[in-house]
Amino acid sequence: MKRHFFTIGLISSFLLSAVAHYSGIFPSAVQLAFSCIAIIFVAGFLGKATESVAHYAGERVGGFLNATFGNAAELIIAFFLVKEGKFEIVKASITGSIIGNLLLVLGLSLLIGGLKYKEQNFNIKLASHNGSLMLLAVIALFVPAAFASSLTTIKMSTLSITVAVVLIAAYLLWLYFSMVTHKNELADEAVEHGEPAWSKGLSIFFLVLATAMVAVQSEWLVGTLEVFTHQFGLSELFVGAFVIAIIGNAAEHSAAIMLARKNKIGAAVEIAVGSSLQIALFVAPVLVLISLFFGKTMDIVFTTFELVAIGVAAIIAKSISQDGSTNWYEGVLLLVVYCILGIAFFLV
Amino acid sequence: MKRHFFTIGLISSFLLSAVAHYSGIFPSAVQLAFSCIAIIFVAGFLGKATESVAHYAGERVGGFLNATFGNAAELIIAFFLVKEGKFEIVKASITGSIIGNLLLVLGLSLLIGGLKYKEQNFNIKLASHNGSLMLLAVIALFVPAAFASSLTTIKMSTLSITVAVVLIAAYLLWLYFSMVTHKNELADEAVEHGEPAWSKGLSIFFLVLATAMVAVQSEWLVGTLEVFTHQFGLSELFVGAFVIAIIGNAAEHSAAIMLARKNKIGAAVEIAVGSSLQIALFVAPVLVLISLFFGKTMDIVFTTFELVAIGVAAIIAKSISQDGSTNWYEGVLLLVVYCILGIAFFLV
Amino acid sequence: MKRHFFTIGLISSFLLSAVAHYSGIFPSAVQLAFSCIAIIFVAGFLGKATESVAHYAGERVGGFLNATFGNAAELIIAFFLVKEGKFEIVKASITGSIIGNLLLVLGLSLLIGGLKYKEQNFNIKLASHNGSLMLLAVIALFVPAAFASSLTTIKMSTLSITVAVVLIAAYLLWLYFSMVTHKNELADEAVEHGEPAWSKGLSIFFLVLATAMVAVQSEWLVGTLEVFTHQFGLSELFVGAFVIAIIGNAAEHSAAIMLARKNKIGAAVEIAVGSSLQIALFVAPVLVLISLFFGKTMDIVFTTFELVAIGVAAIIAKSISQDGSTNWYEGVLLLVVYCILGIAFFLV
Repeated sequence: MKRHFFTIGLISSFLLSAVAHYSGIFPSAVQLAFSCIAIIFVAGFLGKATESVAHYAGERVGGFLNATFGNAAELIIAFFLVKEGKFEIVKASITGSIIGNLLLVLGLSLLIGGLKYKEQNFNIKLASHNGSLMLLAVIALFVPAAFASSLTTIKMSTLSITVAVVLIAAYLLWLYFSMVTHKNELADEAVEHGEPAWSKGLSIFFLVLATAMVAVQSEWLVGTLEVFTHQFGLSELFVGAFVIAIIGNAAEHSAAIMLARKNKIGAAVEIAVGSSLQIALFVAPVLVLISLFFGKTMDIVFTTFELVAIGVAAIIAKSISQDGSTNWYEGVLLLVVYCILGIAFFLV
Repeated sequence: MKRHFFTIGLISSFLLSAVAHYSGIFPSAVQLAFSCIAIIFVAGFLGKATESVAHYAGERVGGFLNATFGNAAELIIAFFLVKEGKFEIVKASITGSIIGNLLLVLGLSLLIGGLKYKEQNFNIKLASHNGSLMLLAVIALFVPAAFASSLTTIKMSTLSITVAVVLIAAYLLWLYFSMVTHKNELADEAVEHGEPAWSKGLSIFFLVLATAMVAVQSEWLVGTLEVFTHQFGLSELFVGAFVIAIIGNAAEHSAAIMLARKNKIGAAVEIAVGSSLQIALFVAPVLVLISLFFGKTMDIVFTTFELVAIGVAAIIAKSISQDGSTNWYEGVLLLVVYCILGIAFFLV
Repeated sequence: MKRHFFTIGLISSFLLSAVAHYSGIFPSAVQLAFSCIAIIFVAGFLGKATESVAHYAGERVGGFLNATFGNAAELIIAFFLVKEGKFEIVKASITGSIIGNLLLVLGLSLLIGGLKYKEQNFNIKLASHNGSLMLLAVIALFVPAAFASSLTTIKMSTLSITVAVVLIAAYLLWLYFSMVTHKNELADEAVEHGEPAWSKGLSIFFLVLATAMVAVQSEWLVGTLEVFTHQFGLSELFVGAFVIAIIGNAAEHSAAIMLARKNKIGAAVEIAVGSSLQIALFVAPVLVLISLFFGKTMDIVFTTFELVAIGVAAIIAKSISQDGSTNWYEGVLLLVVYCILGIAFFLV
């Protein structure tokens, strides 16, 4: 009965939102309301699908799949922005995705999971490797910025391309390491929770479908939102790094929090941290290489504000997650840092 | 017999110092000598009172009480400086208190405790949380400074006030977390050492009395010292961050070292680290809010030198304390960093 | 049979290289080829000697001896550069030695050791202390640079000399701590691997002899290489920090990798990390003091690029080594950071 209600809500809210988007007959306030209702349903759908896949594939692989599908949407949106040469917005949204995942998604997961369970634990070796990879991401973005003022544009392009290739290689080797040679060392202990609702094949199909729906719905919402934000006079940096990133990560949000509430904190961490690592070490470098085909290289130099935000997020997330044990206050700490950064970006 | 000698020394040195301060008939050299002798006695008295309270309340709560009473004096002194608009001296003394506690008090405790015991251990979960809170403090001071050049004075005030409110909320939630929801997880193993000298009520009364005496005595000493430092041509930054901070933290010094010598390293760490966290996350933000009532907002932007000092102190203290195990050489490392910073501040 | 072949190769390649160097009758390409072949043989000889001494003295002391003999050569070369007032090249080669050891030598050891063994472990307390000492080194180089713009030349000399004296004291106390008072706590578990080839006395003699041969051979190779690098138009910074450092650390390279392959990862880490600590905390400060005798003080202020490189190397090496457990992917991470820095230094 409850499931039928959810299915009806999901389909009808999605269709209503589609009609509102393409017809354009509703006032933008109504359109925004439809989009927000729909995103809650599709995010919920994605969360269920992820959990079901995680049941069959293990917490980590399920988390990895969720992070990848979540980032696929962002990669597609960024692709079109790179094509149009809008590099600054791309970098702002990369920054926003990284800190949104490390601070907001992870923070809410730890807080909400921690309110239910006194202490939640995940694989300490994975935590340690995640921390080192986060440092690599910060270093790879920090070094080009530190050398930028002494390099010509052509040399900066060379540096950006080489760093991009090296990072992609490092990320692919990480997948090989964590999924093949050291799979068992990085796995969480099995946590069984009864039978899943769907078969293995159907779970994967729903995961793909839900991700696609989230991606489409996010784009519609972002479009509607841009009209609104200009009315409120918000800066592009703030909108790109905070507003769009929060909505664009709706998939990670809903899935991670649902998993944390079911005490599968390992999968929640994998979604949040794994997603930000994927953006920093794979999506961003791929975008640099893609820009080569459109004639103008997007360099890998981020602004000081963006570097501060990414560096600060990585350091506090590493400090909190490195003991493989989490509680509600660690969630509070991450959210506090997110607030401080949000205020600073809003004011600047 | 020994205790009688101590009581007589305490009272007579305190009275002599009071006479010298209010009469002003002695040359300043004699006045300084009286102050120094008196501060040794009152600091010793405070140490005994803290230890006695720690016996009844547990190491952590005893350490927290000591840190709070120690900082109450500093908060009162800073209150009058804020009222007079002397923001630079306030920030210099906040910096000095943080690094004095993290490097000098903690360093001496580990060194002196480590010379007596090969290895001293304290709760590793507490160490981990302390480290993350220190990072939060550094981030909260670093972000406004990084954005300062791009913000108007009004926006900077808004940022300072918002960050202050967020930090106070984070600190109060930390107290709730560490004293209520996760009290047992953060507690040290009980270390029993015979009967205390005083009853529970008398111990608390003596703790309050001794703190008040230290506060009063510190003020007298600071006054005398200022005359001297001007004669030696020392800079305000150096006097504020090093000379005043060392004397202002006399209470923490004597208590922490005495506890370390009795192998209660958990309480010593709580005093040193807890005191610096309290200053960064509670005293400093409260001073920002207090400044609102005097018409001119004190922003939360510290100078580069101050940020370097705080950042460096937090990082080395976190690195050394994070394994929950201490030895004499770790004390040496903290003191070495304190020396390097001291020389740099002295020369600049 | 195999050993005889090695002995003949070692002696003949060394003699050929000597003839080429002093006669100067060969073209520089041939001279370079002779040097490279010879360096492979003498480095192999040093590796065997170190391993044999490590058998008698324990992994850590053997590693320490190797690091010290390896750095003795660099100290001698730097001594002559300081005498000639070539401070920039000295600092570039100090930078190169530190990052070469922390990233290249350690990275290759972890990678090659990790390809043979799934996981290699070493003493976790030693890892923790090494990490704190690395931080001290970064702090000691970072603080003077942060204060440099506000100090006169004379005050900068005073700061450099005082920091140098403090660092040397800290390093000597570290030796006392790790070799005397806490020797057992920092020792690795014994790993026995059959009988060594040589007696105790002969092992030590061969260690000294092999180190001397590596030092002499490195100098010859550096001389030949300089001719080549000028032909290729490489910058002095890149050659000093990367080319010379790689060859100058050939001794550490061969010994560390050989030990990692024999699962003596504790000794390999001691060579790589111990060597970089010795350079930062002992060799560099001693060079500052030596410069006093030649009339002009070498200050301890490194360039921004050098500080970025040292800071980045220390942070990632600390993050990776702090759990006392290593694998092939951690080696990859270190090598990736070395590549990024190498490209940046090459382009700048």
